[in-house]
Amino acid sequence: MASKKTKLSIIPLGGLGEIGKNMTAVECGGDIVVVDSGLAFPDEEMFGVDLVIPDISYLVENRDRVLGILLTHGHEDHVGSLPYVLKSLPVPVFGTRLTLGLVQSKLQEHGLVLHDASKAVRRGETVRLGCIQAEFFRVNHSIPDACGIALHTPAGVAVFTGDFKFDQTPVDGEVADIARLAELGDQGVLALFSDSTNAERPGYTGSESSVGRALAEVIGAAKQRVILATFASNVHRIQQIITAAHQHGRKVAVVGRSMENVVGVATDLGYLKIPDGTLVGIDDMRRFPAEQMVIISTGSQGEPMSALTRMSTGEHRKVEIVPGDTVVFSASPIPGNEKAVARTVDNLYRRGAQVVYDRAAGVHVSGHGSQEEQKLMLNLVRPKYFIPAHGEYRHLILHARTAESLGFPKENIILAENGSVIEVSAQGAAITGKVTAGKVLVDGLGVGDVGNIVLRDRKQLAEDGVIVVMVAVDRDSNLVVSGPDLVSRGFVYVRESERLMEEAKVRIRETLHRSEEKRLTDWSSVKQSVRDVLGKFLYDRTRRRPMILPIVIEV
Amino acid sequence: MASKKTKLSIIPLGGLGEIGKNMTAVECGGDIVVVDSGLAFPDEEMFGVDLVIPDISYLVENRDRVLGILLTHGHEDHVGSLPYVLKSLPVPVFGTRLTLGLVQSKLQEHGLVLHDASKAVRRGETVRLGCIQAEFFRVNHSIPDACGIALHTPAGVAVFTGDFKFDQTPVDGEVADIARLAELGDQGVLALFSDSTNAERPGYTGSESSVGRALAEVIGAAKQRVILATFASNVHRIQQIITAAHQHGRKVAVVGRSMENVVGVATDLGYLKIPDGTLVGIDDMRRFPAEQMVIISTGSQGEPMSALTRMSTGEHRKVEIVPGDTVVFSASPIPGNEKAVARTVDNLYRRGAQVVYDRAAGVHVSGHGSQEEQKLMLNLVRPKYFIPAHGEYRHLILHARTAESLGFPKENIILAENGSVIEVSAQGAAITGKVTAGKVLVDGLGVGDVGNIVLRDRKQLAEDGVIVVMVAVDRDSNLVVSGPDLVSRGFVYVRESERLMEEAKVRIRETLHRSEEKRLTDWSSVKQSVRDVLGKFLYDRTRRRPMILPIVIEV
Repeated sequence: MASKKTKLSIIPLGGLGEIGKNMTAVECGGDIVVVDSGLAFPDEEMFGVDLVIPDISYLVENRDRVLGILLTHGHEDHVGSLPYVLKSLPVPVFGTRLTLGLVQSKLQEHGLVLHDASKAVRRGETVRLGCIQAEFFRVNHSIPDACGIALHTPAGVAVFTGDFKFDQTPVDGEVADIARLAELGDQGVLALFSDSTNAERPGYTGSESSVGRALAEVIGAAKQRVILATFASNVHRIQQIITAAHQHGRKVAVVGRSMENVVGVATDLGYLKIPDGTLVGIDDMRRFPAEQMVIISTGSQGEPMSALTRMSTGEHRKVEIVPGDTVVFSASPIPGNEKAVARTVDNLYRRGAQVVYDRAAGVHVSGHGSQEEQKLMLNLVRPKYFIPAHGEYRHLILHARTAESLGFPKENIILAENGSVIEVSAQGAAITGKVTAGKVLVDGLGVGDVGNIVLRDRKQLAEDGVIVVMVAVDRDSNLVVSGPDLVSRGFVYVRESERLMEEAKVRIRETLHRSEEKRLTDWSSVKQSVRDVLGKFLYDRTRRRPMILPIVIEV
Repeated sequence: MASKKTKLSIIPLGGLGEIGKNMTAVECGGDIVVVDSGLAFPDEEMFGVDLVIPDISYLVENRDRVLGILLTHGHEDHVGSLPYVLKSLPVPVFGTRLTLGLVQSKLQEHGLVLHDASKAVRRGETVRLGCIQAEFFRVNHSIPDACGIALHTPAGVAVFTGDFKFDQTPVDGEVADIARLAELGDQGVLALFSDSTNAERPGYTGSESSVGRALAEVIGAAKQRVILATFASNVHRIQQIITAAHQHGRKVAVVGRSMENVVGVATDLGYLKIPDGTLVGIDDMRRFPAEQMVIISTGSQGEPMSALTRMSTGEHRKVEIVPGDTVVFSASPIPGNEKAVARTVDNLYRRGAQVVYDRAAGVHVSGHGSQEEQKLMLNLVRPKYFIPAHGEYRHLILHARTAESLGFPKENIILAENGSVIEVSAQGAAITGKVTAGKVLVDGLGVGDVGNIVLRDRKQLAEDGVIVVMVAVDRDSNLVVSGPDLVSRGFVYVRESERLMEEAKVRIRETLHRSEEKRLTDWSSVKQSVRDVLGKFLYDRTRRRPMILPIVIEV
């Protein structure tokens, strides 16, 4: 055991070379702890997929050695896969109160509860799991109670920043624990695993409290109702909106399921302070004139079913946008959502609202540190080995360059990928192997049953639709007794393409006759001929390639 | 006729409240001219659609009165629908030499030629069409030979800016014709129809020549090969790259079909000046060391099949990215392309390239004027009525606000939509009616045969796939003689879901038995029952809603 304990393995299972589904396994002396258990949202090629979670085969294979899951903060990309992961890996979970509060509310929806040995920790507290001691330390992020985690192991200390920024004027006054980071650095850190999200941005990220001032100005200047959309989990943002509304003598209503949920949890746990009488139910809004109302809503990303999107299209049951309303997007579009957000802005303007969505308006800041903060983290922790994490590949590369610019030796910067086994010890560091890692797709109740074949089929169906060709043949004579009949969906509007379909039938009939003449009974080859002939005919005539499903039924 | 000639109707058929497919009909005294004939690219919900073109029913209905199509410049969003439009509306086309050159090359691919009366015009020239005189005037844009068009009609002058910026140091030295715009303004302009694209951007758009300097720096500093991706039609950009390459003793290869095409056309027409011996074929590249090569490529938008994208994934047959290569994105991502561009950047980094894609690098400027240029246009032309055009709804609104900030009376600013009949005369302006206008979808060879029903089906197929249920029934007894058989695609991976499919068959059999017992022969109602029962069963078990196609074949 002694020799095993002199080295530490860091195994990212998600979050490297991608945004989201952050999860990292850490092993030392035979013990495994897991940092975070996030999800990602499907990219545009993953038709019909709801969520993407990490492949945890490696953890399941080593389940007896997995001692717990440590959570840095309560965002979906760090905790969202827990309802799936805990089903096959029912281990204790550790995180701060707000993090666990949000997790519990999510688990409840799935009919799950936390393992009895789970525990809410305070920032600064340490949890012992086998030979590993996990120290949670304070960082700033766009959700309260966010932590980094320093794992003290027999092989040395590994620091996981989680998502972080250094906010000198955070809304709750809780500045990231710079002193402790410096102390860890003084004592010697073997490896730093650090947030690369904003590696493209020079300078510092603005303080959350600067957003509060900008929002208060917008609310103060508005003559009528103000509707603000932001991320539900940004409790400090919500706090600042409520405070500003109260200062301007306005009531606040909360709209959207996730917003109502987070406001409930955060209020219950004491993270949100709402002045008495400020919060009003959505149905009570009409009792107050427009100039006395603020609405906090979901939908800052233009999500199709969200409250703000439905307001923008006139489909929200409770809130109708009217001229004079001011709508504020207190968020930036996440890459991929730009068009959806723009469409929502357009629709809000169409209804006569004044819309504040410009970056220059100062109504949003990122929750991730920019280059100067990434440098500060590196300079405080001064790790022997540096692993850029949490980001797409270019972010990891740029974060590595930032470290090089500080004098970090290139050979001590490890560009890994999901599944890489990164072994670090006082003697050196190397990627020594690879474990199973990847994407598991969640579609409805199915976890992992949508794979490449299903996605490829969905893509073809999406682009050119489907044509079913049915033929009934006599079991004894092998002669066609009925059909071919054609049914198509998503290919052409059939009523206007009757001739095309009739001609298609003629081609199929010819193919079938040839098979009959040859007395073919190998239906799979007959089907293949139909597919070939019909596919070629339709491509020549339409330049489309619908999926062709020939079906032979023997009667 | 006299009274008819005192008013002018402007009828936008595309480009208002949307990006692309710009087309505007202008009527006076019974004569119709059309300004531009563009296309748009499908949005993400338009599965399988290749292009979107304007609905020209109105023009076709009035074909006898349509005297010609006037083109402002050669971009797809202003000329791209011509191959479709000219088929049903074979009228003369007018534009500058480069514009017509690009159009002709496009028409050729469709086996079409320009109407004999078509004519290449010089900037400054006027064309007479019925009672309308079309004066082409110089503007700056991200393609050479760009024009605005002043229509002199008996009812007054209407100015169409096309896409424009005011570039004080354009690459070809041809500054927008500010003097003529001021003169038109002095003489009195009834209506201005002006480019709103950059209505969100304060200040001035940078000069194209500033990009030339930045690109020359990048090329000068590069130690190995430099690959630059930009829009094929940006001939001035290409010119600047070629000039810089030549100055640094490098050869230039051109990669990508549209890039080769535009370079060919622009060189033939004299718009590109390529120093002798500078251009080399892609196959001759190997004869030159990496530090002597520059490659100009398509793919600046991360388009899946483009040259740069294929290089980034190692799938380009001629160009392999190697460490030391510098790749420059001399373009901004068009909204909606952000993720594709980011993916390409990631892949290029993975292959070891240095990638220059940051806005701060100065390697791209917009072709559209920002707010200050929009103001300058308004102040020069001083129209009686102002119609913000070319942009999504928020751009039109913001452009209108810009005009208001200059003192334009709100009631003289007309916010129209596609199909609006805007009547302007010395006496007043109003939207007096609506003509057919909208999107016609092009999918392969089909123009307009993909409509809402087909798209809705494709969406359902994309999300949850399809299940075909086949049953053969005896024509006389109405009893099931074969089946039910199930075939699914894009729903679940069937090999791993055999039990689900077996259970589904049981449910269908039960449904069919009930129908048999009731001696139902109304197959459409039997099919509906199968659809309902199976749909509910599958939703309960999977939370998915595949398209269900029950097929009954009588034998």
